[in-house]
Amino acid sequence: MNGFPKSVENLISEFTKFPGIGKKTAQRLAFHILSSATEEAARLASSIVDVKTLVEACTVCGGISDEDLCKICKNNKRDHSVICVVERPEDIFAFERTNSFMGVYHVLDGLLSPLDGIGPEKLNIQTLNNRLETGMEIILATSASLEGDATALYLQKIFQDKKVKITRLARGLPVGGELEYTDEATLLRALEGRTTF
Amino acid sequence: MNGFPKSVENLISEFTKFPGIGKKTAQRLAFHILSSATEEAARLASSIVDVKTLVEACTVCGGISDEDLCKICKNNKRDHSVICVVERPEDIFAFERTNSFMGVYHVLDGLLSPLDGIGPEKLNIQTLNNRLETGMEIILATSASLEGDATALYLQKIFQDKKVKITRLARGLPVGGELEYTDEATLLRALEGRTTF
Repeated sequence: MNGFPKSVENLISEFTKFPGIGKKTAQRLAFHILSSATEEAARLASSIVDVKTLVEACTVCGGISDEDLCKICKNNKRDHSVICVVERPEDIFAFERTNSFMGVYHVLDGLLSPLDGIGPEKLNIQTLNNRLETGMEIILATSASLEGDATALYLQKIFQDKKVKITRLARGLPVGGELEYTDEATLLRALEGRTTF
Repeated sequence: MNGFPKSVENLISEFTKFPGIGKKTAQRLAFHILSSATEEAARLASSIVDVKTLVEACTVCGGISDEDLCKICKNNKRDHSVICVVERPEDIFAFERTNSFMGVYHVLDGLLSPLDGIGPEKLNIQTLNNRLETGMEIILATSASLEGDATALYLQKIFQDKKVKITRLARGLPVGGELEYTDEATLLRALEGRTTF
């Protein structure tokens, strides 16, 4: 295969397993490692091993953490009566970057997708149920995709009899979005969800 | 910093050192590792270590190899009297993918760049000189950049008294290139280097 030494070929094929990394980029990454200092490559390799050994799911919210309880669940200054329900651990950090949300999170670890065999029992729904108490708010913050909407709808349905407030993220124009280039579905949602000025 | 666990932060900062990998992509790669199987991450880590321990520069051409002599230099079917001079080891594989070049290679390991303090003594020029014999051809296959041209010019100058044929890659329209979008410099070279039809 193109005459790469075996070990280089192996590394390239490992890199191509990453999302969004094609063959060319994988080659570039592999050659970068080849030309970098041995200590730097060793540091990268040990970081990869570290991340898999040190990081685990928070026992409460399912977010990533290097302790049993993540920093957010441990934080008493946060509002533990508002739970933002997200698909994946990385979504938590998208909200954290806004520096505004002071509630806590719950990671579903996926979205409902019957075609892929992902039913409700595969998601962290029972643990979410266990966290709910009267008067709480759950924000359904799944993606604006088909699966995201279906999952939000399902959660809304099973939790509607609980005495909790169920909300979802607003749909509308993204900040900086040009009207001309906005798709019809988004525009329709923006229109439906219009607010008084 | 955004509340990532320390080990995740470390991994992200290691990934951002790669060329063309920004903060967002680095995060995506790190989270991919987090969500992948432990064995897969271990395999990636050991591939990185392997590549640094097993791969070395070929003692003749300076290309990458897992033995003293690379597959190309060892191959008797190749024409060892035609040496294609390239900047980096990865350039060799670009030529190999054409499946047409049957000569051998020589890796300079950089280009002349006085501003960065890279003079001729930092490049593998002496080893190239040692390989030259009367009647050989050297193809100066450096990039079509300022540094690439300067390096080619320098090599042409110091080797002009040797009884070797010195050639360089053709400049012109890239295959599939549209005339309308071709820059002036390329078009000028294509015109100067026109061939009879």
